[in-house]
Amino acid sequence: MPRIALVTRIPPEGEALWADHLARALPGERIGIFRDLSPAERAEVDIAIVANPDPADLAELPNLVWVQSLWAGVERLVAELGDFRRPIVRLVDPELARTMSEAALAWTYYLFRDMPAYAAQQRQRIWHARPYRRPSRTRVGVLGLGELGAAAALRLREAGFDVRGWSRSPKDIPGVVCHAGEETLDRMLAEVEILVCLLPLTHQTRGLLDARRLARLPEGAQIINFARGPIIDSPALLEALDRGHVSHAVLDVFEVEPLPEASPFWDHPQVTVLPHISAATDPETAAVIVAGHVQDYRATGAIPPSVDLTRGY
Amino acid sequence: MPRIALVTRIPPEGEALWADHLARALPGERIGIFRDLSPAERAEVDIAIVANPDPADLAELPNLVWVQSLWAGVERLVAELGDFRRPIVRLVDPELARTMSEAALAWTYYLFRDMPAYAAQQRQRIWHARPYRRPSRTRVGVLGLGELGAAAALRLREAGFDVRGWSRSPKDIPGVVCHAGEETLDRMLAEVEILVCLLPLTHQTRGLLDARRLARLPEGAQIINFARGPIIDSPALLEALDRGHVSHAVLDVFEVEPLPEASPFWDHPQVTVLPHISAATDPETAAVIVAGHVQDYRATGAIPPSVDLTRGY
Repeated sequence: MPRIALVTRIPPEGEALWADHLARALPGERIGIFRDLSPAERAEVDIAIVANPDPADLAELPNLVWVQSLWAGVERLVAELGDFRRPIVRLVDPELARTMSEAALAWTYYLFRDMPAYAAQQRQRIWHARPYRRPSRTRVGVLGLGELGAAAALRLREAGFDVRGWSRSPKDIPGVVCHAGEETLDRMLAEVEILVCLLPLTHQTRGLLDARRLARLPEGAQIINFARGPIIDSPALLEALDRGHVSHAVLDVFEVEPLPEASPFWDHPQVTVLPHISAATDPETAAVIVAGHVQDYRATGAIPPSVDLTRGY
Repeated sequence: MPRIALVTRIPPEGEALWADHLARALPGERIGIFRDLSPAERAEVDIAIVANPDPADLAELPNLVWVQSLWAGVERLVAELGDFRRPIVRLVDPELARTMSEAALAWTYYLFRDMPAYAAQQRQRIWHARPYRRPSRTRVGVLGLGELGAAAALRLREAGFDVRGWSRSPKDIPGVVCHAGEETLDRMLAEVEILVCLLPLTHQTRGLLDARRLARLPEGAQIINFARGPIIDSPALLEALDRGHVSHAVLDVFEVEPLPEASPFWDHPQVTVLPHISAATDPETAAVIVAGHVQDYRATGAIPPSVDLTRGY
């Protein structure tokens, strides 16, 4: 019987958790962690389940038929694999929009409830209650109103915030003031106190939040980037943070990930660095989705719908 | 025309914000900050609006008729004023349950989304995604199901958490497993990963969460105390934190407030210290409530319903 290899460069604790959930979801399969497999066992592998795999590891699976990614985004995987010709299947988790909207609310609360400021006060043993203003008086902007952005805007609205949304093409979200088109962006930025970025990375959004646009935000505005690093011009953001124009940034995505050790973001007092976890995958639900793909393949021999390598998604 | 004095020991920035909102809500009144008033002006004051006032300041208002507190809790004010015989009017803000349930959700997200752990990782420049488990698989317990506790339990339930509640007398909250009576407390504690304390402080709840009961929590449980400090036995909590049985505590209330500078809570890596801000008052909405009291008094001469000094609330 063929084997399944789990090929990752994630920390062992995370890898073991995935192995555990996959074994539970696929009790009839022989699943091994790549580096624990002998060459003979590697030759039996027909399916690789991967999270940030080393391409050299995949090359050691001579009878590999297809690859199941544990992540939704596979741009990097496709780029790294180069001429690798096996089909790559993305993880499409219906929970993603819920998880992302939860993250948008959780970290908006983090800023709205002054958690970074209270942490700084605690370090200095300062007991000082900061003024509170209710969410209906707090303007939150969501950039990007696709599936994730729209879900986040609605969730923030339900929590009582005064939400404004912006997207390229007109959208209609109940209770949310929606702006559309590049010419409305400056006005929208000028209105929001907390800006949540959920835009896709395209030629048009790369560097969209540059020095000029960051300057449109009101003094002391706060930014959350849960989309892609290159959408915000990093030097411009650092400059805006340093002069206090942007008072805090929660950054989950960066131009290079993992964030290089030399990055000034790591120890900037007004920056919260997160390791790309806003729309985290739940291994338990994801393992069930992956199991469905594997079982279909075993039953029919048909590889699940895979990534179009020319488009990259 | 008589004057109103604002008498506080809160930081000047907060005091100025209150003065501003009160002036806007009461355009026909002469409102002054106590220490800016001359002795002649102090003699004109008939209403004091107070937040943690120095009793000696109030004694310098010879014609004071009644006192409006800007806070809901007046136990300390009543205790400090001693023989002071003027009626004290509490701030009853209908927003309180909403604000408290918002705080319960915001800081539950703080723990649930591993924000303290990610902050620690950032300090060490560690890029490591921690495993995610969805809220429906996360058991949150709410101690106390009065107006605030019930609102918090419902809000957590709406956010998808698996919520269990506990109170002295039986309660019924849709979607929340409610336990009642002291004999069920141990069982409930053993079930919850995040415990939110919203009990009133009474003879029965003082020290309720002692070493024995904290030990009932599962290994690695997290605690949020938004109620009153003495409900948790501080040395027992510190001991449970130190051996990792409780992995983190968010403490907004303490036996002595402001928290003394020598307290071990300030620099404990598993403790988030907040300066009693969970159910913060919005000065804008509160100023409107206070204005209503003042206007009624000016129109009718009737002092608004005040605190029963024998009961203390």
